Amino acid sequence: MGVEPEVRIAPATAADAPVLLALIRGLAEYEQMTTDCVATETALRESLFGARPAAEAVLAWAGPEPVGFALYFENYSTFLARRGLYLEDLFVRPEWRGRGLGKRLLAHVARVAVDRGCARLEWSVLDWNEPALRFYRALGAEALDGWTVHRLTGEALARLAAAEAGPSRD
Amino acid sequence: MGVEPEVRIAPATAADAPVLLALIRGLAEYEQMTTDCVATETALRESLFGARPAAEAVLAWAGPEPVGFALYFENYSTFLARRGLYLEDLFVRPEWRGRGLGKRLLAHVARVAVDRGCARLEWSVLDWNEPALRFYRALGAEALDGWTVHRLTGEALARLAAAEAGPSRD
Repeated sequence: MGVEPEVRIAPATAADAPVLLALIRGLAEYEQMTTDCVATETALRESLFGARPAAEAVLAWAGPEPVGFALYFENYSTFLARRGLYLEDLFVRPEWRGRGLGKRLLAHVARVAVDRGCARLEWSVLDWNEPALRFYRALGAEALDGWTVHRLTGEALARLAAAEAGPSRD
Repeated sequence: MGVEPEVRIAPATAADAPVLLALIRGLAEYEQMTTDCVATETALRESLFGARPAAEAVLAWAGPEPVGFALYFENYSTFLARRGLYLEDLFVRPEWRGRGLGKRLLAHVARVAVDRGCARLEWSVLDWNEPALRFYRALGAEALDGWTVHRLTGEALARLAAAEAGPSRD
């Protein structure tokens, strides 16, 4: 058996945009959502590493090779009047799984949450992903059963936005 | 029949913290979650109206009376490499329902999303809330069925955060 390269986790910077994009595409492929993945290097650079970053990303490196990433942003609990962190993505390349890298990335984000005094860390899981569900339950995560996220985009979003300016029939 | 007071929607400011807290408590009562609601005026003022606001809130006023609120923050889509808005809370006092105020608040937030070039507007709905589900479907919202939000707090969060610093057995 060869010696395993050391894995380190480090915040992504603007120079990592190509690496991050490749990993995001890897995730989209894994989720069979490649057609939904329209991110570009330029868009990543502007939205994540510009004047007002929309989210933060960390990369997992095995020696010189990027093998995973986590991307998160702050959310908010009204009942607590406190910030939390929301983990939007957690991905480890298939050939690098089973080495605890996912847990290390997740633990890194949990550490960020604790250091910032965040009340909680949240993320979404696909209901058919039994191994993930078991893993998260073992960590002590609570599933918010009974809630479904709803999403408005494109024409429907524009239509509702236009309703605000229209004549009030309330 | 008396004349209905005009309803206006306006961004909440630091001076509105007491009003906002009363509405948040009204929401907690409606959701039978009063014990989970530990927000205070000070915490709201610091987290929403301090140097680095964690979220934005708008209030609905009927004449001089605060009758509802919406609270939202920015989220992020990796596949789009674009910001979105997440609507954390939407609440109208029970005695003021049926006048389209919820839709006006929602349309206001949709307008903010469109003006900022956000890709989408998202929010969570309780599965038993049939009237809400019908309403959102009629607006063209897509339900993200098959995903469940998971949450890590308190001891479990601290334990995972501590695992990052511990000896690596990856």
